[in-house]
This record gives sequence, C-alpha cells and structure tokens, in this order.
Amino acid sequence: MKTLLESVRPTVLLEPQKLRSFLGLDLTIATETFQHTGSFKFRAAYNLAMSVENDEILTASSGNFGQALAYACQLLGKKCVVVMPDTSARVKIDAVRGYGATVDLIDTKLVKRADRVAALAAEMPGAYVASAYDDPFVIDGNATLGDELAGHGFDDIVTPVGGGGLISGTSKGLCRSGSAARLVGAEPLLGNDAARSLREGRIVANETEPPTLADGARTLCLGRHNWEIIKNGVAEIVEVSDEKIAEAVRLYYGLANLKCEPTGALSLGAILEQPEKFAGRRVCLVVSGGNVDAGVYRELLG
Amino acid sequence: MKTLLESVRPTVLLEPQKLRSFLGLDLTIATETFQHTGSFKFRAAYNLAMSVENDEILTASSGNFGQALAYACQLLGKKCVVVMPDTSARVKIDAVRGYGATVDLIDTKLVKRADRVAALAAEMPGAYVASAYDDPFVIDGNATLGDELAGHGFDDIVTPVGGGGLISGTSKGLCRSGSAARLVGAEPLLGNDAARSLREGRIVANETEPPTLADGARTLCLGRHNWEIIKNGVAEIVEVSDEKIAEAVRLYYGLANLKCEPTGALSLGAILEQPEKFAGRRVCLVVSGGNVDAGVYRELLG
Repeated sequence: MKTLLESVRPTVLLEPQKLRSFLGLDLTIATETFQHTGSFKFRAAYNLAMSVENDEILTASSGNFGQALAYACQLLGKKCVVVMPDTSARVKIDAVRGYGATVDLIDTKLVKRADRVAALAAEMPGAYVASAYDDPFVIDGNATLGDELAGHGFDDIVTPVGGGGLISGTSKGLCRSGSAARLVGAEPLLGNDAARSLREGRIVANETEPPTLADGARTLCLGRHNWEIIKNGVAEIVEVSDEKIAEAVRLYYGLANLKCEPTGALSLGAILEQPEKFAGRRVCLVVSGGNVDAGVYRELLG
Repeated sequence: MKTLLESVRPTVLLEPQKLRSFLGLDLTIATETFQHTGSFKFRAAYNLAMSVENDEILTASSGNFGQALAYACQLLGKKCVVVMPDTSARVKIDAVRGYGATVDLIDTKLVKRADRVAALAAEMPGAYVASAYDDPFVIDGNATLGDELAGHGFDDIVTPVGGGGLISGTSKGLCRSGSAARLVGAEPLLGNDAARSLREGRIVANETEPPTLADGARTLCLGRHNWEIIKNGVAEIVEVSDEKIAEAVRLYYGLANLKCEPTGALSLGAILEQPEKFAGRRVCLVVSGGNVDAGVYRELLG
C-alpha cells in the first residue's frame, strides 16, 4: 500500500505573467486540476480510505469527492458506494463507475440524500460513512496541501470554501509547517454561511442549498471539525458574486491557459472582488479543481 | 541579463490518469502551455534575442513567435517589430503590443509578408531579421526542451511539426543529453510537407499555405537548418487529420483538464491516428502551446 505522500501528486505551481500584469499583483497559482481525478479531493479521499479499517466505504457526492473516493478505493482494493442524484451529469456518473465504484442513483425529490445514506449504512454494517469535508481524515489528507505551500514565502494563501474541508486542511498544514501566511477563504456570495459564521463566531447555515455557479460550494454550512480549525486559523472569508466567479474562469482561460471549474475559480474571484486587500503582497491562489462539463464551460467563455 | 536557463520555465509534466485509461497507453504530457507567453516559442525567442548583438529585432508572425519575441525583447531591453496580417485576431495584436513591441499590420492580399519584412529591414539596417524556426538560435533555444525530457526514460517523444523549429531543437537537446528516445513528429495531414520530405529525403513544399485547424503549422516547408537535423534525428512523422486534431483538443479538455491550442494537440492526434505504433511504450506528448481564441475553442468543444 502506498503512503499518502507517495500517492498524492504535488500541486502544480504556475506564475501567470499575463494575469499578473493585468491585475498588477504578485500572483502564483497552486492548481489541483492535475491532481488524481482532477481535484484536491483525492488528498482527502485517499487518506480516509487508507486510514479507516473498514473494507467498504459509503458516501453521498454528486461531484469531485465521489470520483476521488472511488479512485482511492480502487487503488486500495476497497469497496465503494456513492449515492448520487439521478440528475447528475452522465459524465460524472460514468467517471465514478469507471473507477469501479457502485453508484446508487436517487430521485432527490422523493428521497433525501442523508436518508438514503442512512438506509444503505444499515444494510452495510461494515461500511464507513464518509463525509466529503466533516471528517478528521479528510482534513488530514487536505493538510498535505498546506504542507506543500508553507515553504514558498507567500504572504496570502486564498482557497475556495464550501463545507470547509480544503481550507481547514490547508490551515492545519500551514500551521504545523510553521507558515505565517495569512489564510483567506473565498466563498460564493449566494451561499455565504462561512463568512457569516466567522463574523458571528458560531456556525451559521444557509436556509437552502445555494444556487451558485460554484457547484462544489453548494453546502448548507461548515462541518463541525472544520469549524474548530477555521474559527481561529482563517483570517477572513471574501464573498464572491457569481459574476466574478465567471469572470475568473474566463481570466484563467485567457491569461493563464488554465482550465478550471467555477468552484476552483473562487480564489481569483476574491481578488477581483477586493483587489486592494492583496496589493503589494505575494499571493497564492489555490485552484481546487478542473472538472467542468463542456457545455457549462462553453457558456462561461461565451 | 538572465541566462536562458534562468529565464525559461521548466516544462510541466502531467500524468493524465483518465487519458491513460481511455487510450490504454502509458502517456506523459509535457506541456508548454504554461511557458512564458503560453508556448514553447519563448525558449527560441529569448535565446535569439539574448544571443544576437543587434538592439533591434524584426520578424513576421501572426502567432506565438511574435508574442514570445516581443516579451523576450521587453525583458532584454531591445526594440522589436512584428509584421502581422491585418486579419490577425485582435487579442493577438494586443498581446504583442502589450509586450512593448511595434506591430506592423499588412494587408496580405496586397503585400507579401516577406516583401514587407525586406522593406522594413532596409529601413532598419541595424535590425536582426528573425525566422520563427529556420535559425540556429531558435533551434538552440528549443533544445532546452530536449535537455529537460532526456532524463525521464521515455521510449517515444512526440512533438508537433510546422516549420520544424520545435522538433529539430528537441532532437538536438535529446542527442546532446544522451537520450535514446525515438523522436516522432506530428504534422497536419492537410500540410504534410515534412512527412513527404522525410520519405523523399529532401525538402518538399506545400503548394499553398495549408488550411489546417492547426494554425501554428500552416507553413510551406521545413527550414533548411531544421531539415539538417530532422533528416537524421526524427524517426517518423505521423500525418494527423483535422478531425483527430479536434478530437485531441476535446480529450485534453475532458480527460486531462488541459486547455491547449489545436497545434499543441497534434502529438495526441498522432496517437489517435496510429495507436498501435505506441502500444507498450512510455510515450511523452509535447503540447507546444495553449493560446487559442475562446470562439474557436468553444466550437471545438461543442
């Protein structure tokens, strides 16, 4: 069995000259779009799958965590079941199946995801039920990204925020590696629970799943384990409009030759929202993933 | 003044798991899409601009070489004039100007590029007239890519072929670094002069500029300096249909999260044309550049 560090690909650091000139800022991109399965989630999924003793792992995910967990389980010879809405893009369902996992399709109008996961868990008593973010193994897996970024002397590190798995992991890695970088979150304005939570000092939830373009950040609230780290480890969370998310996707395309998904563009979106906050600083933008349907991407470019 | 190796960014090596599984081949991507100005041409341009004694450099280029030379001259404090057709994409004209070069727009229906360059050269007696490929400085600059790829144990290295600047440089670098890799060219079928040249043992030219999607390979024939290296250093040149070029762009998008321009996708196109040729071998695909207009890219994805 490969260790976590043997399995994870180092993040790819890019210094986008055109984007730097355009924004007048000292930017470095840390892109996870070339990570296994195309997003940072593999870090979490592999660590979880290798750390738990269970031979079966169950999760609900319509996005990157499902693919990452399926692939991690394939590498480790474990069984994986992923609950997905039957409205999920065909390409995503096929990707999860392609990694050997069982896909359990549900009609979310009739059945809640959590209820279906509970029912399946009762049928699979030996299974570990994995959250995509609210789990110490997830945080520890993502901490490897913080470790990687710690040594580069960045003043600011900006990461997307959904359930908080990435930013809490990054915080943990930076902290244990002795980095003094300011850690900033970038969250969709349409689902700004994390920004509100940080202001109020407690976990605040969105009332419904936020209808943001950033589909990886359509979460109701931060996870408990994530919050324990975020409340002290994150300096600030910038709220990013969907317009700026889309503009960031286009800027990455045109000025950095980088294909990224809307959620991955959140960190650049934060710069577009509040450029003055980053003036004169060495900024690292974490791009969390690159998996976006061609149809959506075409519309964003158009 | 920075040396060539201090200025050039190392190529980015990617191991695209989904693409590997899809094709059943052991592929590594060496992408120059994140090189300065978004293509390998910066290697050539910087080496040329730093090596010639002239303070002014003149070239004709509607594409990546113009941008690369303009940026290299900006870094080195030299004057740069780029002759471009007045039909060039606005984004390309702006990019060259953005690097501080003078753009000389011509109506190619009325004036041949070569004639305009000759007229300008007469007005600028101190200028060096730079070819985008047929120049020893260009070849030496591109040889740095061959040096980088030599140590990885690839069985095959596949590069796009237009005027032959990239493949001759790669050959030179591989050769001097002691690599035994088989070097394979990938050329548009619509402009297959290089493939015909290799078969006939002499430089053969296309009758007109080939109307291929791969705009970086719309050359009439190989350069003389390039041919001297190619005729012995290149094992084979695969002819790639425009359909396979487009399919390769889509596969990079969907299975590798890589944005690349059509010319850059030629090497994967060669695999799609003749997969059996690469079975069981460790193959490196050089992606030469990523600069493609959003409108063209949207059509390719659609």
